Amino acid sequence: MAKENLYIIKIGGNVIDDRESCDKFLNSFAGLKGLKVLIHGGGKVATAIGERLGIQSNYVEGRRITDDETIDLVTMVYGGLVNKKIVGRLQSLGCNAIGVTGADAALIPAEKRKVAAIDYGWVGDVRGEQINVDGWLRLLSAGWSPVVAPLTFDKEGHILNTNADTIASALAIALSEKFATSLIFCFEKDGVLADVEDPHTVIRQITPEGYAALKSGGKLFSGIIPKIENALQAVERGVEEVVIGNSEKLGDLITGISGTKISK
Amino acid sequence: MAKENLYIIKIGGNVIDDRESCDKFLNSFAGLKGLKVLIHGGGKVATAIGERLGIQSNYVEGRRITDDETIDLVTMVYGGLVNKKIVGRLQSLGCNAIGVTGADAALIPAEKRKVAAIDYGWVGDVRGEQINVDGWLRLLSAGWSPVVAPLTFDKEGHILNTNADTIASALAIALSEKFATSLIFCFEKDGVLADVEDPHTVIRQITPEGYAALKSGGKLFSGIIPKIENALQAVERGVEEVVIGNSEKLGDLITGISGTKISK
Repeated sequence: MAKENLYIIKIGGNVIDDRESCDKFLNSFAGLKGLKVLIHGGGKVATAIGERLGIQSNYVEGRRITDDETIDLVTMVYGGLVNKKIVGRLQSLGCNAIGVTGADAALIPAEKRKVAAIDYGWVGDVRGEQINVDGWLRLLSAGWSPVVAPLTFDKEGHILNTNADTIASALAIALSEKFATSLIFCFEKDGVLADVEDPHTVIRQITPEGYAALKSGGKLFSGIIPKIENALQAVERGVEEVVIGNSEKLGDLITGISGTKISK
Repeated sequence: MAKENLYIIKIGGNVIDDRESCDKFLNSFAGLKGLKVLIHGGGKVATAIGERLGIQSNYVEGRRITDDETIDLVTMVYGGLVNKKIVGRLQSLGCNAIGVTGADAALIPAEKRKVAAIDYGWVGDVRGEQINVDGWLRLLSAGWSPVVAPLTFDKEGHILNTNADTIASALAIALSEKFATSLIFCFEKDGVLADVEDPHTVIRQITPEGYAALKSGGKLFSGIIPKIENALQAVERGVEEVVIGNSEKLGDLITGISGTKISK
């Protein structure tokens, strides 16, 4: 029997920050038929609230450190404010959303990142094989659309700040055994651009073979490289396809009319 | 066939605010066998964070008004910080907790309070018959222990601030058709005191008949009167028993060794 489709859709912080873009996206998400999961980042609201609270942002080598005050901040903002506002809006659009973090129902166990050269603080690393597949199946079979805040937890019960892209990939990989999984990364551009300076150069398809040539061309935006490598790894590990594209064109990303498709 | 037991346990803000009391309570809650739901208030942390954010508390006739900034504050603090910290701690104690608000899976639909003499703002009123019983059955049959933040939602998808005692009662009433439901209100005292000045005067049992005499005695703490009347209404509407007692004695409240039991 063919596996049922599952859409795992991640929206970036820029989408959250722009009320109009976010509403457009949530309308499309609510209208999408079938099984679906939404993973959201935090956007600038955490930084803005952190500033009002007088919480200092600490960076080491360009990376934010999640100290005691910062984990409380992101637990509030990602797990509470952003997550519940999205859930409320989806409910009003007829989508039976349920907001979760990785701690809820032990859905996404993680490990606190080991202190090496840098102590990142309360940051969690997650791998596909740690995902609580049974818990996810129960949520999905109840007819709910999970909305996931980028937070996980460790064995001691600490909440951990965790990269939303990584959560999306790990979840897509873990659920590929049960579902035909599409992993969709939504942001403010139309896809991966062959030339970062030219928005009309969307690459429609990337395969493992084609990627090496692209990368050596040297015109890819450096920020997109980890996303592509992450995507290639996901398709290597069972995800049907990864699509990277514009949050305002969700329907077209799913039908293949828009975006960059990454597959084997 | 006898109905399965379900414990619906509410902890007040004073328990949340006291780390030691809260840990003791969560240990007992985690150890409690069977189906259980935890409903938490917010405690002083919302007020403290609100002050740091410069959010003015507005009171009209002694009641806090939930304006736009305040609903964001309580959504963050109750739905994010307090809820997810409790979930993480319960997970570390072997209790498979899942944190929810009334908006998640449309578990507790409510109505924004009508503007009459006072505009309370983003406040929701909930009644037993509005509870999404099917959603609750799915959560409980999955083997999860729901942890509920005192937030609901309306048809337009707005998050609404809602009294935790009211949520606990409405939920207990709604689920009494399916379960033998015990509703337990935990706070910092040993029960309802016949004489508010004397902690040794715990009333062990209150029945509808006995309550009138007690009330006319005039020594009950005025703050406890709505709780008792709420409890009497719950047992009238199908809840097996309501127990009011000390959060540090959860086991004894359940076995009847401690607390005030309110039943028909």
